[in-house]
Amino acid sequence: MLFSQMFIPTTKETPKDAVLKSHQFLIRAGYIHQIGSGIYNFLPLGKKVVEKISKVVRDEMNRSGAQEILMGFVTPAELWKSSGRYEKYGGELLRFKDRKENEFVLGPTHEESVTEIAKSYIKSYKQLPLNLYQIHTKFRDELRPRFGLMRGREFIMKDSYSFHASKEDLDREFSKMENVYRNIFRTLDLDFRVVQADSGAIGGSGSKEFMVLADSGEDTIVVCSKCDYASNIEAAKRSKLVYEAIPPKAEFSKFHTPKINTIKKLVEFFKVDEFFTLKAVVKKAIFDSHTQKLDELVYFFLRGVDELETTKALNALNKNGANILELVDASTEELIECGLKPGFIGPYALKNITNANHVIFDIDLENAEDLICGANEEDYHFVGVDLSLFEGLVYEDIAKVKEGDKCPLCEGILEYKKGIEVGHIFKLGQRYSKPLNASFLDKDGKSAFFEMGCYGIGITRLLPAILEQKSDDKGCVWTSSSVPFDLSIIVSNTKDNHQLEYAHKIYEELKKSGLDILFDDRDIRFGSKMADFELIGSAYAIIVGKNFENGIVELVSRKDLKKQDLDCEKLTDEIIQRFQNTKRK
Amino acid sequence: MLFSQMFIPTTKETPKDAVLKSHQFLIRAGYIHQIGSGIYNFLPLGKKVVEKISKVVRDEMNRSGAQEILMGFVTPAELWKSSGRYEKYGGELLRFKDRKENEFVLGPTHEESVTEIAKSYIKSYKQLPLNLYQIHTKFRDELRPRFGLMRGREFIMKDSYSFHASKEDLDREFSKMENVYRNIFRTLDLDFRVVQADSGAIGGSGSKEFMVLADSGEDTIVVCSKCDYASNIEAAKRSKLVYEAIPPKAEFSKFHTPKINTIKKLVEFFKVDEFFTLKAVVKKAIFDSHTQKLDELVYFFLRGVDELETTKALNALNKNGANILELVDASTEELIECGLKPGFIGPYALKNITNANHVIFDIDLENAEDLICGANEEDYHFVGVDLSLFEGLVYEDIAKVKEGDKCPLCEGILEYKKGIEVGHIFKLGQRYSKPLNASFLDKDGKSAFFEMGCYGIGITRLLPAILEQKSDDKGCVWTSSSVPFDLSIIVSNTKDNHQLEYAHKIYEELKKSGLDILFDDRDIRFGSKMADFELIGSAYAIIVGKNFENGIVELVSRKDLKKQDLDCEKLTDEIIQRFQNTKRK
Repeated sequence: MLFSQMFIPTTKETPKDAVLKSHQFLIRAGYIHQIGSGIYNFLPLGKKVVEKISKVVRDEMNRSGAQEILMGFVTPAELWKSSGRYEKYGGELLRFKDRKENEFVLGPTHEESVTEIAKSYIKSYKQLPLNLYQIHTKFRDELRPRFGLMRGREFIMKDSYSFHASKEDLDREFSKMENVYRNIFRTLDLDFRVVQADSGAIGGSGSKEFMVLADSGEDTIVVCSKCDYASNIEAAKRSKLVYEAIPPKAEFSKFHTPKINTIKKLVEFFKVDEFFTLKAVVKKAIFDSHTQKLDELVYFFLRGVDELETTKALNALNKNGANILELVDASTEELIECGLKPGFIGPYALKNITNANHVIFDIDLENAEDLICGANEEDYHFVGVDLSLFEGLVYEDIAKVKEGDKCPLCEGILEYKKGIEVGHIFKLGQRYSKPLNASFLDKDGKSAFFEMGCYGIGITRLLPAILEQKSDDKGCVWTSSSVPFDLSIIVSNTKDNHQLEYAHKIYEELKKSGLDILFDDRDIRFGSKMADFELIGSAYAIIVGKNFENGIVELVSRKDLKKQDLDCEKLTDEIIQRFQNTKRK
Repeated sequence: MLFSQMFIPTTKETPKDAVLKSHQFLIRAGYIHQIGSGIYNFLPLGKKVVEKISKVVRDEMNRSGAQEILMGFVTPAELWKSSGRYEKYGGELLRFKDRKENEFVLGPTHEESVTEIAKSYIKSYKQLPLNLYQIHTKFRDELRPRFGLMRGREFIMKDSYSFHASKEDLDREFSKMENVYRNIFRTLDLDFRVVQADSGAIGGSGSKEFMVLADSGEDTIVVCSKCDYASNIEAAKRSKLVYEAIPPKAEFSKFHTPKINTIKKLVEFFKVDEFFTLKAVVKKAIFDSHTQKLDELVYFFLRGVDELETTKALNALNKNGANILELVDASTEELIECGLKPGFIGPYALKNITNANHVIFDIDLENAEDLICGANEEDYHFVGVDLSLFEGLVYEDIAKVKEGDKCPLCEGILEYKKGIEVGHIFKLGQRYSKPLNASFLDKDGKSAFFEMGCYGIGITRLLPAILEQKSDDKGCVWTSSSVPFDLSIIVSNTKDNHQLEYAHKIYEELKKSGLDILFDDRDIRFGSKMADFELIGSAYAIIVGKNFENGIVELVSRKDLKKQDLDCEKLTDEIIQRFQNTKRK
């Protein structure tokens, strides 16, 4: 392509609201153009990268036997009502009515639609398994769209859905898809981690996320420094805590602890390690709007060293028979209204005070002794508490894993990393097939609901994810399978006909080899052309400059900006060779 | 592809609401699946054809220098308000609010968005011309979605928009795009006509539609039997009418014509040719909601042989200074209320009766004499009317062209054909750039608004258009550039290992040549496999059957269902040869 003919509106101005470098560079290099809050137009370069990324995804998906379809973006609300998601999805689901007052949603995902397809056509186990995917526009009405394409409202996703006759076959496909995704992100040349993810909310039985590592990532992931254990923080596990401090052995008794209403004060007061204190966390549970229940307080107890992980806490409650949509903070006033004494809440006699239905203890407290806890009485704590003496306590894993905790697999030290979620695979089971009544006849001629899996990749989020991981401070650095141009050709002095002629010649020759080339034929300052090369981020640039009269041109690698002299005579062969090697890798 | 592995849910049941064969076949052959009124999912075969058609369009567009982008589907309403379309577009524009009560539309076209792009980046004439296109989902909230993909609500369009520094450059691009479109529809192997189209409504200066000829088409187009003149009926022109009947020469006088209130009765009463009668058509004009005007009656006069063409009539009014949105029928009551005598309305003293502001005569009546017309008095007509004696009459082309009228270019006979609109190119001029204040600096350093063109192709409508023109009563017949599979391979007896082995062998060999092959490896009746071949419509089928033991297989062409014996030994070479020839054509 000739730069002069292409619409690549580069600019030096950094948009005011762009915090992330990927957002800044995508705007400044003319990849995208904002048209509304969280809504972007993809300009020619942006569209080109979207296509390159889509091709990598499509190739791997097709190779796996998945079949590409395209589902309606506008989705009848009645399907979403059948699945129960219409009510549950919250404000991010954009709902609207057409001219005849029929209700619709703008699909943020398509489980309902695809289940409807399977229901329409799949009658027998012989037609299974089936994996259908699409690469299509989605809409999620984010409350605070931000970071450009990272958290937009309209975006492009690859979403696929598989159907199976048995849980075992779903497991098989789930593993296969994990490998397919690993291949995709490997082909995209990304440093990524596959992490255990929370799957409680939708009630599936397995869920993994694919995280591109980058300091600017919004997600915290927990990785083991020894083995390959990695998990989303919301789902991370750890080995049982070990302590080196001396336990505060004491007879069970009540202590006057005036104004000692925090763990910090308690530790100072008793001169004990916070490991031996019992922390109470009270939340307000929001119940499913279908149920008649009002909000209710729920109680969690952890070791003083730990924090509550809300997602784990929610899953633990629902696993134990609750049907709670969300946990939110309770105000001090609400606690007091219930008869609680903030700062002195403990497990003793909790029911008498608050009618607490839901009390959960962190798994690390199982049968713990030598604890100090609130006495549910202003200015009093109990010491010498032994939980093994309680009957019927519910222990679940509800603590947030901390850096320094031990790996659940190998006892290695766990640490935090920042990641950008670019993929998510999920065992849905019968979550959708059952409410939508999507069934088939199994081997024994009996009706059974489909076992389903779903698998998503954020196509347009991959643009900023790649840039956040790879870019430097001069502009975009892409990976070889996502880069819009393999090569830029830059003539230092466009007044010099010899330079221009040679540049044209190699441009024509190299084009034939299938390379994507941007020939910067613009009659502007050499410095501006180099700045645009660095901003746009073609993989390499050939610079026809001063040394051309000596038969030498310069090859610059965008990745590290290293320069290398090349012989003009052998140039095209060398370049072709170089790219063949890259692609063979 | 192996049929057994592909999701191609064919069925014998014809959907109840499917009137058109294209709709029936697309459903029955498993190309599409309806998910809502006017909303369809594309199953693997449907998606494949969408991609094949898109590729033809994309290749030609890229070759022309247009650049692919992707614009937000969800479009801020404020842009549409600036252009004035938010009010004018009517019920087909789907309007909604997001969670923050901001207004949006689901883009049916993207003039406003693309103008915003040009406005953001194009500062100088040196950056012009520019042609940007996208292939993307659109939504038009049709009142009565019907005929499957033909008139759906959600559909895929290729829409492009060009920007120019002058009208002349727009003209140049418009002609270029006409050629690009001709190439596209030629490559798609369609019998089509490029027709003059109405451009009055948007106020542009030129507009052509691309019509695929098919008996089931919703549009009537007027074509010349001698030259290549063709026009949408709404925009068709003709030569001045000629008459062979004797004119009813008479002195101007009033005649008592009791109950003679139709042209038919008038012709019988006076024993004249209806050519010499004056037909009055009264409509009600709906004014732009911005103006403060109420509805108003408007008057048209034509020869008794002609009918009013409403679109032409509307354009004629607006050209003469009105600002009318739409013409609708006036009821007899409304006419009488205004003092009119239905059946006896004539041009004389019209203003005195009705305060008529808008009266237009058909161009064919210019200075006509020997006419008979209503006297604006119950049961009276005038004879010997000579329009040349009137002063200040407005003559415009407002009559609907009839079959048998003469071509405006060559005097050949005009006839009607039925067409399906698949493309539309349009000179927008400054229709959008002006209200959106999108300007650039011209050669003289002065600010000027962009001259714009827009160019659309209905990608998903092309599927039914191709089928309506090409299919027979057995199923889909595609053209070679749109067909999902070049070849089906069908084994007559899957129990016969020799047949199966041979089929596998040629499948593997032919795949290597880049052909798209559907190997029907299903263990079902041969008849069912043949029926599916005919329904799906692969271009050819190789049948490995009875004669295989004699070294002979059969090649069936889907187009004409003709069969041909081929030598097993030479088969792959012959097939490859055949397809190379097809593609060379």
